[in-house]
Amino acid sequence: MTDQPEFDPAGLKYDANGLIPCIAQEAGTGEVLMMAWMNAAAVARTLETGRVTYWSRSRGAFWVKGESSGHVQELVELRIDCDRDCLLALVRQTGPACHTNRRSCFYTAVRDGGKWS
Amino acid sequence: MTDQPEFDPAGLKYDANGLIPCIAQEAGTGEVLMMAWMNAAAVARTLETGRVTYWSRSRGAFWVKGESSGHVQELVELRIDCDRDCLLALVRQTGPACHTNRRSCFYTAVRDGGKWS
Repeated sequence: MTDQPEFDPAGLKYDANGLIPCIAQEAGTGEVLMMAWMNAAAVARTLETGRVTYWSRSRGAFWVKGESSGHVQELVELRIDCDRDCLLALVRQTGPACHTNRRSCFYTAVRDGGKWS
Repeated sequence: MTDQPEFDPAGLKYDANGLIPCIAQEAGTGEVLMMAWMNAAAVARTLETGRVTYWSRSRGAFWVKGESSGHVQELVELRIDCDRDCLLALVRQTGPACHTNRRSCFYTAVRDGGKWS
């Protein structure tokens, strides 16, 4: 693939804090698991390592998903939206993605005017 | 459902600009179509009308998806993540979701170090 221009994370559009949202979707089932943030270095690390790596806004540090819990996200494919300001990571998720031990973070639905889990 | 507490969009967590990201996913196929932003009023309008309504950051106005193009998003279910700072709208998308006339905005993949559409 020598005629293919190399992908540069600097070509993405980041917000005022240097972050871009990344949606994680289970490659096999299409289930949307979570959304978290990356900076350019986290995008590069994700591509280099094949382990989805976010930027933790609360800790101000790289967040290799599952590094402590074992609930890693193996990158299958990284996708970029038309505006280059949002990422979609197709992943193979080991165990639950959510810190509540649910498979997906989106376990609450608004129905009939109320919230349902 | 009289014993169900009413959902209040003010209970979500918005960023410094009063916005929350909303992922639109095709309810039937699981395809992730786009990500855009809502403020509390847009969340309320989406639930009231059943038409997914974002907040256009560039225009500073409500953006009823498909209002001009006809490519509307009919809300099937609105989901909230564990941190209450991201939404997932399951929708029935009429036509393409992307302004490039593609079904999804995430048509570019990073592969072998390059970008592929």
